[in-house]
Amino acid sequence: MVEKFIVTPWEVRGRVNYNRLIKQFGLVPITDELLEKIKKFTHDLHYFFRRKIVFAHRDIDWILSEYEKKNQFYLYTGRGPSGYTHLGHLIPWIITKWLQDKFNAKLYFQITDDEKFLFKESISLEKIKEFAYDNILDIIALGFDPKKTRIFLNTEYAKTLYPEAIKVARHITISTAKAVFGFKNDSNIGKIFFTSMQAVPAFLESKKMGRNVPCLIPLAADQDPHFRIARDVLPKLGYYKPAILHTKFLPGLGPEGKMSTSEPETCIFTIEDPNLAAKKVMNAFTGGGATEKEQREKGGNPDICSVYQYYLFLFEQDDEKLNQIAQECKNGKRICGECKQILAERVKKFLIEHQEKRSAAKDVLEDFMLRD
Amino acid sequence: MVEKFIVTPWEVRGRVNYNRLIKQFGLVPITDELLEKIKKFTHDLHYFFRRKIVFAHRDIDWILSEYEKKNQFYLYTGRGPSGYTHLGHLIPWIITKWLQDKFNAKLYFQITDDEKFLFKESISLEKIKEFAYDNILDIIALGFDPKKTRIFLNTEYAKTLYPEAIKVARHITISTAKAVFGFKNDSNIGKIFFTSMQAVPAFLESKKMGRNVPCLIPLAADQDPHFRIARDVLPKLGYYKPAILHTKFLPGLGPEGKMSTSEPETCIFTIEDPNLAAKKVMNAFTGGGATEKEQREKGGNPDICSVYQYYLFLFEQDDEKLNQIAQECKNGKRICGECKQILAERVKKFLIEHQEKRSAAKDVLEDFMLRD
Repeated sequence: MVEKFIVTPWEVRGRVNYNRLIKQFGLVPITDELLEKIKKFTHDLHYFFRRKIVFAHRDIDWILSEYEKKNQFYLYTGRGPSGYTHLGHLIPWIITKWLQDKFNAKLYFQITDDEKFLFKESISLEKIKEFAYDNILDIIALGFDPKKTRIFLNTEYAKTLYPEAIKVARHITISTAKAVFGFKNDSNIGKIFFTSMQAVPAFLESKKMGRNVPCLIPLAADQDPHFRIARDVLPKLGYYKPAILHTKFLPGLGPEGKMSTSEPETCIFTIEDPNLAAKKVMNAFTGGGATEKEQREKGGNPDICSVYQYYLFLFEQDDEKLNQIAQECKNGKRICGECKQILAERVKKFLIEHQEKRSAAKDVLEDFMLRD
Repeated sequence: MVEKFIVTPWEVRGRVNYNRLIKQFGLVPITDELLEKIKKFTHDLHYFFRRKIVFAHRDIDWILSEYEKKNQFYLYTGRGPSGYTHLGHLIPWIITKWLQDKFNAKLYFQITDDEKFLFKESISLEKIKEFAYDNILDIIALGFDPKKTRIFLNTEYAKTLYPEAIKVARHITISTAKAVFGFKNDSNIGKIFFTSMQAVPAFLESKKMGRNVPCLIPLAADQDPHFRIARDVLPKLGYYKPAILHTKFLPGLGPEGKMSTSEPETCIFTIEDPNLAAKKVMNAFTGGGATEKEQREKGGNPDICSVYQYYLFLFEQDDEKLNQIAQECKNGKRICGECKQILAERVKKFLIEHQEKRSAAKDVLEDFMLRD
């Protein structure tokens, strides 16, 4: 049976089959050979690489070979501020921060308040901007280098972005945008233009420097369609194609990894009460048996367990210990209750610390912001 | 026989039948009764009104009744800087200047450099901006009040305009833009978004003031489709519908009033050598007979004469004298050669004076400019 899943920049639904996504989007899988190449420069590998949470790329080998030739790249990633940040949003940002540290790379962080306004009909731009500034605290809390990181809202940086966006737009037909994004004639005219705004930071550093600078974009895989178009257009404007690193999606706490901001029990927001978050973990869908007795006898199934995924993505960075969790689950030694308890404590601890960093971020926010 | 003509924001072709255009666009004709109402406030009438060069409107009666209630309106007009200014471009600007003087009204003057870049595939944004700043000299040369006039290029004022444009865009579907402007799926995605940018100055003053301010837009009739859409959308954003005054197109010097910037002999640019302009007039298509003898006997036809149109629009502001020109043409007393000679001298004089004012405009340009 072929599982159904949908991955678009505006909707991720179902249990994503990443091998099929690679084929569907035309991505290049991250191989062990490539990881060795990366390690040559970084000396160690982030566990996102080891675990293939960063699972695919476009042209990362080119980025490395340019880097080797002292042609430094810059990083670009983003956030669509449609609500509060949840743990899933952190995944591409964490690897971006690691890459910034390892390669001493400049970073542009785009907050697409325009996009979220255009795609959500019932929300004001003012509310979107509130979310934007709240999300930025999460970004800063992750520890990006204030000297090398520039964060901007599209509406506040439009004097720089819009004149470049129209240069991109001139090369994208309505047909292309419809085909890539699935727009229909009843879509609004802002939605269809928007991809031009998302393309700009992929050459902004080159524009500013007056020479071509390679760009590497770590992103959640659903954003790839924007850059499939951008990679076609940018060479026509005289710029390099940007390289891309694709991250997997942190599953939600519901059955089959369902996560939805409209069902807040399925995801953990960075701003929420750590005790409430712990409760959500305790109520999460697991791969355990119906009773403790059954689980002791038959063992659990980490592959379908949302709790295991939280260890894998964020809360057990030691590979051996992670492996031990899986083994002990399978052989019935580790029971869901205690497993969730341990995760709940770690989530709680993470949130308490992260929230302190968020508070501190308020004082340095302006050091990061880029405005016209 | 039904004459063919095309009037869109990007193409005006053929001999325009204004009565049919009024029906086609759903405009309201300017009546003598309305002119009397205007006169109540202005005491005299610009000859563009008397001669119905301003031939149609939307909601001008509403503007006047608000004005009577001390609810002052502001003016908005624009220029697409695709090349140098020719005399035809001046028509809506001249009436805008008159309205500014008579009603002491603030004016936003939008230079749509983004539009012209998106619609002309073979030109750089830098070149478009050169034209923009050249065109602005013509605008200032007409004598607008520097205290009450603000001129801006869309790309330089995008931080203000773009966040408002997306609010407009959210209410315009691809279908609507296709139907109104005739876009096809091979149009670029910037073209289809652009109308949102043109809508913004129609509520910009209301946005800035934090209260609704009536807006009157004098424009060449080809721009009406943009504001047909804007008039639908603005009330959804809580703003007044803008009122509009429509001007006719100055015909070119070629047969059937053909004017084309690709055929420079058919139009007179404000920057050109006054002697060359005079020559163009001497070579213009007229309504005269094949020979002087024939013309003396049968008379000429001012209705099809491009030279007569130049008197009508710009170079004979005295109605009696204009009427005399027409009469003497029809009865064979006025011969094309001398008629063109007189016009040529007036055109030359106008250009010499206008070019002096253009030079002086360079020194005060910054007093007019609005940038983020």
